Amino acid sequence: MPHPNDPKLRSFVPVDPASHFPIQNLPYGVFSARDGLAPRVGVAIGDHVLDLWELAQDCRFDLVEPAVFAASSLNPFMALGPQVWSKTRARISELLRADHPELRDNDDLRKRALVPMKDVKLHLPITVSGYTDFYASKEHATNVGVMFRGKDNALQPNWLHMPIGYNGRASTVVVSGTRVRRPRGQLKPPNVELPSFGPCKRLDFELEMGVVVGQPSKMGEMLTEQQAEAMIFGFVILNDWSARDIQQWEYVPLGPFQAKAFATSISPWVVTREALEPFRLNGPEQAPAPLPYLRQTKPNNYDIELEVDLRAGEMNEAKIICQTNFKYMYWSSVQQLVHHASSGCAMNVGDLLGSGTISGPEKHQRGSLLEISWNGTEPADLGGGVKRSFLEDGDSLQMSGWCQGDGYRVGFGAVEGTIAPAE
Amino acid sequence: MPHPNDPKLRSFVPVDPASHFPIQNLPYGVFSARDGLAPRVGVAIGDHVLDLWELAQDCRFDLVEPAVFAASSLNPFMALGPQVWSKTRARISELLRADHPELRDNDDLRKRALVPMKDVKLHLPITVSGYTDFYASKEHATNVGVMFRGKDNALQPNWLHMPIGYNGRASTVVVSGTRVRRPRGQLKPPNVELPSFGPCKRLDFELEMGVVVGQPSKMGEMLTEQQAEAMIFGFVILNDWSARDIQQWEYVPLGPFQAKAFATSISPWVVTREALEPFRLNGPEQAPAPLPYLRQTKPNNYDIELEVDLRAGEMNEAKIICQTNFKYMYWSSVQQLVHHASSGCAMNVGDLLGSGTISGPEKHQRGSLLEISWNGTEPADLGGGVKRSFLEDGDSLQMSGWCQGDGYRVGFGAVEGTIAPAE
Repeated sequence: MPHPNDPKLRSFVPVDPASHFPIQNLPYGVFSARDGLAPRVGVAIGDHVLDLWELAQDCRFDLVEPAVFAASSLNPFMALGPQVWSKTRARISELLRADHPELRDNDDLRKRALVPMKDVKLHLPITVSGYTDFYASKEHATNVGVMFRGKDNALQPNWLHMPIGYNGRASTVVVSGTRVRRPRGQLKPPNVELPSFGPCKRLDFELEMGVVVGQPSKMGEMLTEQQAEAMIFGFVILNDWSARDIQQWEYVPLGPFQAKAFATSISPWVVTREALEPFRLNGPEQAPAPLPYLRQTKPNNYDIELEVDLRAGEMNEAKIICQTNFKYMYWSSVQQLVHHASSGCAMNVGDLLGSGTISGPEKHQRGSLLEISWNGTEPADLGGGVKRSFLEDGDSLQMSGWCQGDGYRVGFGAVEGTIAPAE
Repeated sequence: MPHPNDPKLRSFVPVDPASHFPIQNLPYGVFSARDGLAPRVGVAIGDHVLDLWELAQDCRFDLVEPAVFAASSLNPFMALGPQVWSKTRARISELLRADHPELRDNDDLRKRALVPMKDVKLHLPITVSGYTDFYASKEHATNVGVMFRGKDNALQPNWLHMPIGYNGRASTVVVSGTRVRRPRGQLKPPNVELPSFGPCKRLDFELEMGVVVGQPSKMGEMLTEQQAEAMIFGFVILNDWSARDIQQWEYVPLGPFQAKAFATSISPWVVTREALEPFRLNGPEQAPAPLPYLRQTKPNNYDIELEVDLRAGEMNEAKIICQTNFKYMYWSSVQQLVHHASSGCAMNVGDLLGSGTISGPEKHQRGSLLEISWNGTEPADLGGGVKRSFLEDGDSLQMSGWCQGDGYRVGFGAVEGTIAPAE
């Protein structure tokens, strides 16, 4: 049987070369097709969703019961572990292959199992057990450091020694398309003596990838590189919405709290670790060498092109405001997971780990408006006289990402959010 | 029907005057009685546990189905809302009253429903949806500030304006009695140039109360004082185990992460907000006056006596190392919850909010070893030549708390943890 990552594979389902969802991808999501039907698990293929519950009901999977795919999140499937993930992916690939007649020639099953994507509603794909956010781009950390502490103290002393992260708020992780209400909070600009409470005036995005943890670890136990990697089910694109003014006033000494608690948006399709394997590469050199528990033996990053588009409320068209790549990240997802468990912190099925803002070395590669507008001093020019230092009500922000193969793309689709006014 | 808080109420179940669990208390917990029986919901009364599932099976509750009490956490019961909490509490009080024959004279039901506490195992009472930790004692924040920044900059500028808090790690909240493994982590003492990885050398406790949130709030919506109060199901005692050396190196700029992620212990019985009502009082005056969204119209604190006992591994007896009171807390639980939701952050059933370390104005009222030993410069004298600046392997730490009524106590029992060596 050809490996699902084989670049020459083709599906009998038509797939445009620009599509994010060829047979080499097969990302998992949760969808509902018709009003009143409960959400279930599916896989994206071209412009269609493959309904895994329908296939399971028809006894097309040996290893997975239909109930696992009748769930409103991927957690029950993820809980089955990496061997089942891998075999299920291979089986789905087989079922979709152009040269495999089983589904291709079964009109009845094919009609039930392949749903046009335009007819489905996509849901939050996982039940988020815990949400953790890292800070792993050296360029991003340096940019922010230069802005707030000056060039000489840009990077904090601990930054090069460990993946810095904090616990975020799991309850407000939402799926792409969910409107994001401008948060209110305590604001105290530097030139004002006392804080006031009101709508955030410096609302920002942060371009990140999210790791979906699919297996648990035990409290009190550390993880090796190999164990951590095997626990990673897949990746999504993640927008870590941020209220810069709330953050500035609240974050000393315990870190961001309400500034990041109002919303975090993720893309609806979870691209599996296996599908990304052909795009693995080395991240930036780590110097000083990480402590032994953080050392990696394999190339530790992925070549994922990323783009951010902003459509200002008063404009009809979106404008690209950032083009960067996941490969610039200094600390890898595996290192983040190993560090996360290093104190004995138990990891759970459904944990979501934000990579931290992904900026690159070039100016057009900055992954937040804070950096793009250099803290409001150089507003982004969106054309037609429209400028933005931070997000306004009605603005719509979209992030997308893909790995470019030879004649095909393994893509993430997009994560979009539009800003609603504060209540 | 007498109100369950009536100080003259008596139960037919014998209750020692020093017991934490008279009929005026009726805290909820999750227990399993015999090997192999699944955990279920019970209420503590004297030295017994009242099995609510047995009562529900016998149709003794109008409002609650037996399945709600057959759960391994209080979350399904909490989800039913404050009216059901209140009516169920009144009904349980009635069933346990000395002058009410219904359960008292029903030998068969009484034998099934009343289980000696010595025969049960107590479990984590809630499924922790999110765990948030605050920093709300002015004395604690000042002590820590003086130690690390000096007297003139002890309190950070934001501290008097909002309840400072951060998201903690829900996956490692454990019930009293769970052994706590000394965490490992990155350590960089000030006199050493590079960090190393190894067992924490400055392991500490933090005496806190935990608020159990029993009702959800909607993403994007703020809470009033009244709404927040109605969402609080009850309180537990909470030990926020802390690795001071890991924290010192990791916490800039995003706050504590692995230093607090390895374990948080809570007491097994959740004392309801209703049971604490007679012990309500005003906390310290808040000056400057809080911003309008944080103002409270009612006395905002509770008179809860708290005690910490430390038994060093080499000793047979525990020694009291802290005696303080919850009433010293500057920011109230309701203010914390209102602030938590102020950005539009959704709250969930089962959210746990740590109060922050509870220290008082006097030296014997300090709620952490960091403060008691003044950062290791004045080790606590446990007698017999045994001293402690921080916790050693084999040390056992117990926190207990109670409200003193006239001839009875509404108590929390205790939360205990013994330190196991790093792996």
